[in-house]
Amino acid sequence: MPPVLISLSSFGAAEVGRHGQLWCAKLAIAAGADSVEVRGELLREPAAELPALAGLASVYSSPEGLWAEGGGLDSAALERGLAAATTLGARRLKMSIGDFRASSYGSLAGLGSQLADTPVELLIENDQTVSAGTLPALQAFFDACDHAGLDLGMTFDMGNWHWLGECPLQAAQVLGRRVRYVHCKGVQRLPAKWVAVPIAESAAPWRAVLRALPAEVPHAIEYPLIGDDLLAVTRDQLAQIRALRATP
Amino acid sequence: MPPVLISLSSFGAAEVGRHGQLWCAKLAIAAGADSVEVRGELLREPAAELPALAGLASVYSSPEGLWAEGGGLDSAALERGLAAATTLGARRLKMSIGDFRASSYGSLAGLGSQLADTPVELLIENDQTVSAGTLPALQAFFDACDHAGLDLGMTFDMGNWHWLGECPLQAAQVLGRRVRYVHCKGVQRLPAKWVAVPIAESAAPWRAVLRALPAEVPHAIEYPLIGDDLLAVTRDQLAQIRALRATP
Amino acid sequence: MPPVLISLSSFGAAEVGRHGQLWCAKLAIAAGADSVEVRGELLREPAAELPALAGLASVYSSPEGLWAEGGGLDSAALERGLAAATTLGARRLKMSIGDFRASSYGSLAGLGSQLADTPVELLIENDQTVSAGTLPALQAFFDACDHAGLDLGMTFDMGNWHWLGECPLQAAQVLGRRVRYVHCKGVQRLPAKWVAVPIAESAAPWRAVLRALPAEVPHAIEYPLIGDDLLAVTRDQLAQIRALRATP
Repeated sequence: MPPVLISLSSFGAAEVGRHGQLWCAKLAIAAGADSVEVRGELLREPAAELPALAGLASVYSSPEGLWAEGGGLDSAALERGLAAATTLGARRLKMSIGDFRASSYGSLAGLGSQLADTPVELLIENDQTVSAGTLPALQAFFDACDHAGLDLGMTFDMGNWHWLGECPLQAAQVLGRRVRYVHCKGVQRLPAKWVAVPIAESAAPWRAVLRALPAEVPHAIEYPLIGDDLLAVTRDQLAQIRALRATP
Repeated sequence: MPPVLISLSSFGAAEVGRHGQLWCAKLAIAAGADSVEVRGELLREPAAELPALAGLASVYSSPEGLWAEGGGLDSAALERGLAAATTLGARRLKMSIGDFRASSYGSLAGLGSQLADTPVELLIENDQTVSAGTLPALQAFFDACDHAGLDLGMTFDMGNWHWLGECPLQAAQVLGRRVRYVHCKGVQRLPAKWVAVPIAESAAPWRAVLRALPAEVPHAIEYPLIGDDLLAVTRDQLAQIRALRATP
Repeated sequence: MPPVLISLSSFGAAEVGRHGQLWCAKLAIAAGADSVEVRGELLREPAAELPALAGLASVYSSPEGLWAEGGGLDSAALERGLAAATTLGARRLKMSIGDFRASSYGSLAGLGSQLADTPVELLIENDQTVSAGTLPALQAFFDACDHAGLDLGMTFDMGNWHWLGECPLQAAQVLGRRVRYVHCKGVQRLPAKWVAVPIAESAAPWRAVLRALPAEVPHAIEYPLIGDDLLAVTRDQLAQIRALRATP
């Protein structure tokens, strides 16, 4: 059975804003989560909040891209992410590749050096942007890593592919072997846009997608957790993800 | 050209409740169906209805699972299904596997013995439950049958996969060779749920799914047949299914 | 970077009726299109409009099927299409196969002879009809062409497959090598029907479909171009298609 986390963004920006991520993290743990993912973009006072969250989180999610607009490695952004993860005591840092492009290949060696100095593991996530979320963008990135001898794993977000017109099943088949962390997310299509929903309410072939991904890596809930009894809602959703990974 | 049947549930529980399955079966035959599938869950007085339906039906659909909660073979449920099929003069009995699990493997030999005593053929259907409708559940079951030397065929319901987040095209590719009966069903996605619709109104890639299934086995309509002129509606839908299987 | 065209039907029948295809073609060119596709079904006075459009169009789209009801080659329809393309100075003629069937195979030699006399290239499009738009229909046609030694290319319409319950990704994988012209079209599913929308607003895995098609062949926009500033809308959509084909 893999560890099951809650990405704290699941409680919604408003709720997190009202209560803070410490409150949310404690609720998640109380509901039975193995750990949480702390969200950089939802921190109001990082210097106070991150130390307070120490020990509760195993992943820090940075909102910054690894490569800046134009294709230069953003070492400072990486450093900030690593520092936050270290403060949290989180073993993993999740980032998107940002504006990685052909001209960025040379910077992979520098990235490797920077990562050699830290016990924190960097995981690359597919987001909802063309440069950092399409299948060719991620394949090109991981192929370049292979050539550079850089062994990076992936955070596979099941839902984000839809926003880009990608087929999540195809993406899972191509990238499955890279995946070390799964963001569970259901989707529904409103007339003009995609929205994130609990996995069991998804209109996507989510069960087939999950099956194409490694079962033993950590899984995080990253979809709206809403309800009068937030603890019960969170407990139920954790049970669902665990049941999915317990069945053959 | 395969035989085309009407699953009598297509007329809706209310209509069947009002008129009975005999009335519905006669309407189906009058509209040109080769035969019908009688639904156990819609019988009110089985002892009277089943003999009256004799000769019209080639399939009896049992609402009971073959394995009971906990994983024990429900021989009594199977016996009831076989008896109903026999009374109908139906060559086939359709059931779901229910709570079949690893601990149930040993009961396959007993199932085989029970089936050896009857000319009725048991067909396993994918339903809308996790234990009896997901691809791994059905693969595990049929693999266990292979090991036990038990040759069972499948009723492939085109629509049910969607309710479980499965990809029907993948399921058809994996299970196609097992299929001896097809339940034709279109689906549409309402904001929060799937609904069954006539096949030509389906939002799924239904034509590609059908193509991955054997063309020569019996096909049944199992989607709402509704309209002021039910005979004409039924005739039209039968013609559609026949046209699908007549074109290359 | 492939040539990017506007199919003039994108401006809508009402707008084209009001302004004519010459006005629309000039707008498309002014917005940066490499060329346009003239639509036969939207011509009101072909004898006057076609010569006036000469030099602006590289494709003429005939609304007639190549094979008439019953399966006979409609040489006259082909002749009309070729004549229109010649008057336009368009290098390509786009038609659907119409009622091509097994009995039509013998007429392929005659089609070949007719095409040998013209520099205009015939491209076969998948439309929204069973006989000329399903995957088996097009595979059977192109296989017959192969046997007859007739080398015809395909216009791949990304959206039309949905209307027929076909999987566009499967179609792209099977027919991709035949494709010499791509009709870009997004789709959304209303409760009871499919509608064409700009590609980036599509609910289909359009990016994966495009990727399975040759990148260097001409691409045409064939989805609604609507807005107060039609020139700006057209310019934006052209930029989007070009960006898609510029990224790896």
